[in-house]
Amino acid sequence: MARRTGRRPGNPDTREAILTAARAAFADRGFDAASIRAIATAAGVDPALVHHYFGTKEELFRATVAIPVDPAELVPRVLAGGRDEVGERLVRTFLAVWDSPVGTAAVALLRSAVSNQWTARLLREFLVTQVLRRVVEQLDLDPAETPLRGALVATQIAGLAMMRYVIRLEPVASASPDTLAATIGPTVQRYLTGPLDSA
Amino acid sequence: MARRTGRRPGNPDTREAILTAARAAFADRGFDAASIRAIATAAGVDPALVHHYFGTKEELFRATVAIPVDPAELVPRVLAGGRDEVGERLVRTFLAVWDSPVGTAAVALLRSAVSNQWTARLLREFLVTQVLRRVVEQLDLDPAETPLRGALVATQIAGLAMMRYVIRLEPVASASPDTLAATIGPTVQRYLTGPLDSA
Repeated sequence: MARRTGRRPGNPDTREAILTAARAAFADRGFDAASIRAIATAAGVDPALVHHYFGTKEELFRATVAIPVDPAELVPRVLAGGRDEVGERLVRTFLAVWDSPVGTAAVALLRSAVSNQWTARLLREFLVTQVLRRVVEQLDLDPAETPLRGALVATQIAGLAMMRYVIRLEPVASASPDTLAATIGPTVQRYLTGPLDSA
Repeated sequence: MARRTGRRPGNPDTREAILTAARAAFADRGFDAASIRAIATAAGVDPALVHHYFGTKEELFRATVAIPVDPAELVPRVLAGGRDEVGERLVRTFLAVWDSPVGTAAVALLRSAVSNQWTARLLREFLVTQVLRRVVEQLDLDPAETPLRGALVATQIAGLAMMRYVIRLEPVASASPDTLAATIGPTVQRYLTGPLDSA
């Protein structure tokens, strides 16, 4: 993280070049296969500069999708209260983020993912590698079932976001977090830890 | 339906003028409050011509949102097998439509609703008045709970459509209808007829 290129740190063109290269790499190759080294090469900068501007690969990825929250901080909160309450707490945690000022960026990402295949791929990578993988890893589930469980959770959470923030369907649009946690939490709980009738 | 104006039936400009007036009326006032008479006036045509081109108000509405399926035909199919299977059958019916060639129009509507407030309002009206109202009316539910039940179903179905057809999150994107009906059906069933922990 020490070596510097001749560019000024904070140069907006350089930042933008790195973000553009990172978006392309994450969308094309996925989070796991994309490397900081290849992103730096594509952007014409030294890998150390990528770290200097954006920190870790996770942080660079969040910058490319403009997500202002760190799943590495949120996920432990979801899992803190024990396995049987993870569904309800996951709904509450999502709502706390989406209802907050930073939620605007999340809604913008959802809108953009729907109209743009590239953003859709980035959002998919974000969900799978940054959120769902962390949650299911902690729950000690049958590995053969976890991809389906995670994707089912994503259908319910994404649909909640769509109806509450984008379509604004009442009474979900103005329902309290308590009501939504009580009604939708059990769905997420079943998708994560309950019996799946087929898999 | 007899009286005709001087315009040729089938004139594409007239059809388009009616559709434009209808979209504005349904989005501004909602399906129930919008009248054929007011739409005709806004389009500068005789109400009989609106009926001649588009049939009933329901049919006109479906034309404005470009939905090629008629919920009046689908809903009885969902309800046919009895109250305890309605969740699973609703998922199967949705998938049958969305997986079919006409599903492309439904996906386009979903995309458009996310990026356009006007289409969002039309889609919301469509869901509430054409689909959910018909389903909950038949199920003999507590009227105080039906709006929440219907909206919860919408969160799950819209999220399924998003993840399967737009974001293409695996394994939901390529799961069989049987798998999705078995895993997501119980969610829809609970939202419709099960206990809601709060309301």
